[in-house]
Amino acid sequence: MNSVYVVGIGPGGRDQMTREAETALERCSVIAGYTVYIDLIKDRYADKTFLTTPMTQEAKRCQMAFEEAQKGRDVCIVCSGDAGVYGMAGLMYEIKESYPDVDIKVVPGITAATGGAAVLGAPLMHDFAVISLSDLLTPWEKIEARLRAAAAADFVICLYNPSSRKRKGYLEKACGLLLEYKSKDTVCGIVRNIGREGESCQVLSLEELKQTKADMFTTVYIGNEQTRQIEGSMVTPRGYRDV
Amino acid sequence: MNSVYVVGIGPGGRDQMTREAETALERCSVIAGYTVYIDLIKDRYADKTFLTTPMTQEAKRCQMAFEEAQKGRDVCIVCSGDAGVYGMAGLMYEIKESYPDVDIKVVPGITAATGGAAVLGAPLMHDFAVISLSDLLTPWEKIEARLRAAAAADFVICLYNPSSRKRKGYLEKACGLLLEYKSKDTVCGIVRNIGREGESCQVLSLEELKQTKADMFTTVYIGNEQTRQIEGSMVTPRGYRDV
Ligand SMILES: C[S@@+](CC[C@H](N)C(=O)[O-])C[C@H]1O[C@@H](n2cnc3c(N)ncnc32)[C@H](O)[C@@H]1O
Ligand SMILES: C[S@@+](CC[C@H](N)C(=O)[O-])C[C@H]1O[C@@H](n2cnc3c(N)ncnc32)[C@H](O)[C@@H]1O
Repeated sequence: MNSVYVVGIGPGGRDQMTREAETALERCSVIAGYTVYIDLIKDRYADKTFLTTPMTQEAKRCQMAFEEAQKGRDVCIVCSGDAGVYGMAGLMYEIKESYPDVDIKVVPGITAATGGAAVLGAPLMHDFAVISLSDLLTPWEKIEARLRAAAAADFVICLYNPSSRKRKGYLEKACGLLLEYKSKDTVCGIVRNIGREGESCQVLSLEELKQTKADMFTTVYIGNEQTRQIEGSMVTPRGYRDV
Repeated sequence: MNSVYVVGIGPGGRDQMTREAETALERCSVIAGYTVYIDLIKDRYADKTFLTTPMTQEAKRCQMAFEEAQKGRDVCIVCSGDAGVYGMAGLMYEIKESYPDVDIKVVPGITAATGGAAVLGAPLMHDFAVISLSDLLTPWEKIEARLRAAAAADFVICLYNPSSRKRKGYLEKACGLLLEYKSKDTVCGIVRNIGREGESCQVLSLEELKQTKADMFTTVYIGNEQTRQIEGSMVTPRGYRDV
């Protein structure tokens, strides 16, 4: 049976890709993906056929990948981070129903949450909730309910898609909600361009975060009650000290 | 300044390690870690000094790593999965306060949540909460409150540490709580030995999960209202279909 590999390439640099992902890319003759991610890896795989589509045409990208696989070619579809976290893996399974003779293999990658956490220190050491602020595919009411639930139960919160050109005030709105439950001094962190050129991070209070502008290459962390700053790093203690 | 690298080696096989993690291990002369993880990589790095301690002596392991770094040696401390998710990164920062002249660098790894998700299909495609069922370091009341909050707000839920020798009925207890909020037919998944010999997975209902025994090398997934089975895989749709 022909397979399509759905490959997470990690947040940025080649160094954060796994060997399994590299092997999958090497053996494929066709690599499909969003134009920006293809550009990140194109120079390394000069002999491949690349199929790119812009951001909004995810379904078309998946169909193209399946069609190539049906023709008997080895196909990879690449995503940044992990393919199964706000990536293409889910849609691939949904579309697979029309291509019964093609198999899907998901190759995991470092997702932005853990990639960015390593830049900040150790913010995700205890129970955490991952929430996307994008309301393109989810009603804002549902996002708001999840923010409230996560804050009330004192999860560390990691936000994806904190902002985009069309959604400017969302991070501010989210912080406003969280401030109903959490202290304004809650330790927070923000990481831009994880693993990419221009990587930068900042540790700040929830109050300061509310006034911070994020772009679409930013991942945001809101600490729990125990989270603190240690020499400039954001750390959520787990309590492992020998008892 | 001397550095200690806190390295996530991924859930299992070498293939799921990043190049950054491999490079860190190669340049170090001392590798510290829990006996079981050291055994996973020992044969590849015959020329290194290994410092192992059993499971319960995390703080001692960290101190040993810092002492070696202070002597001027390059040191790695390894964790399974990601070092920042129920791993050693947090404790390293806490103990660092006693070693001001040693620097910490966290090298991220594939965490069990995304590694296991790739085995099941695409369960984590939408907002998710990661919760450890271990009450060694967290009061059960807090775990329970988080399970309830995550269920009520319809997060996909990923459970670490679902069981251990001393905590036998915890997964059953957790499922019982979740059943107060979620349908008994909620699509769930369970993955054992991700990336390791004997890797296996199962997709089942929440009712069936309640009757399932998990061991400590198991990661558990409870779907949201939209999660479904597609040809045996566990898939949470995100709704990316072109609009
Ligand atoms: C559509 S999601 C894709 C997530 C990706 N599949 C993953 O697992 O990381 C895009 C969001 O992921 C986060 N993200 C992805 N790559 C990033 C990077 N290199 N630096 C910072 N944030 C990143 C940002 O929050 C961004 O808005
Ligand atoms: C103390 S936590 C360590 C987590 C690790 N730092 C990570 O990021 O994956 C141990 C728990 O992680 C999960 N886990 C870690 N490695 C696993 C594997 N190879 N297969 C299944 N579950 C695993 C299990 O739930 C286990 O009880």
